Amino acid sequence: MDVFNVISKRQSYRGTFTDAMVSREDLIKIVQAGLDAPSGCNAQSTSFVIVDKPTLIASIAKLLGDRVVCKTAKAMIVCVCDKKPVYGKLSFYIEDCAAAVENMLIAIAALGYSTVWLDGVIRGDVGVEIGKLLNIPAELEVRVLLPIGVAQTQTAKPAKKSFDERARFA
Amino acid sequence: MDVFNVISKRQSYRGTFTDAMVSREDLIKIVQAGLDAPSGCNAQSTSFVIVDKPTLIASIAKLLGDRVVCKTAKAMIVCVCDKKPVYGKLSFYIEDCAAAVENMLIAIAALGYSTVWLDGVIRGDVGVEIGKLLNIPAELEVRVLLPIGVAQTQTAKPAKKSFDERARFA
Repeated sequence: MDVFNVISKRQSYRGTFTDAMVSREDLIKIVQAGLDAPSGCNAQSTSFVIVDKPTLIASIAKLLGDRVVCKTAKAMIVCVCDKKPVYGKLSFYIEDCAAAVENMLIAIAALGYSTVWLDGVIRGDVGVEIGKLLNIPAELEVRVLLPIGVAQTQTAKPAKKSFDERARFA
Repeated sequence: MDVFNVISKRQSYRGTFTDAMVSREDLIKIVQAGLDAPSGCNAQSTSFVIVDKPTLIASIAKLLGDRVVCKTAKAMIVCVCDKKPVYGKLSFYIEDCAAAVENMLIAIAALGYSTVWLDGVIRGDVGVEIGKLLNIPAELEVRVLLPIGVAQTQTAKPAKKSFDERARFA
């Protein structure tokens, strides 16, 4: 699938997923795209826990208030950050994780699935609880969760500013 | 170009660029990929200044110690962040910018150019000076700079951890 086509068509999905499964083969392709992202000082600070057991998905969905996009997800990818500094006092773990997530969003769209980047809603206690469920060491931060499946009905894309409102030649 | 192919082949480039130019048409395609990235609460907090005037490129390269990847760049994309909170007290400007940058890295690779994600080296004074050169309002943060051109000699990819070292099924 053409890269510019996928990038321009990708959009967030917060609705119900159909019963169609997400194969492990596809989950591995998606996470491989995440691993292929660059990271500051090549620290590779993001790691990935892939959830496809229905009972575990249900437990995580419950922590997220049973929102439909989680409850009906056929798989979830949990992104975990190692926050330690890598360049003087600087750490690039937020950037590293976001770049990996963006690659995975593109991979998910390319394979015909949908997802939404859940971040703010798992910050703090919810993330800590998800970490305990998945046996993630407490010193790492559970930062992003991607619920994955096939969209039941595609929703409209949110309005975006034009090129000229956000970009200019100097 | 196939999306998985581009994602897996993309790599940072810190060497000399050839004399081949980067067309404005390609620069617009690259920045459009950045605009297509998602942003927290759809705040679209990242904006882009595209530099292709040789004198301006030379001035920016000087601020960066005349490193060869900047000095020989045929264009630069400067990513600018609006840091204001968008979700309670949270702002996602770092994630927003990183997602846009990752989309642009993929677009740059797909079009046959090379680049490197310059971030830590423009944090602080250097970023402020670049902002002044480009008339960027002082309340915005100059966060990332991408020097772009055609690589003279492709360098080796840095070693990366294996899938099993960074990912697991729960």
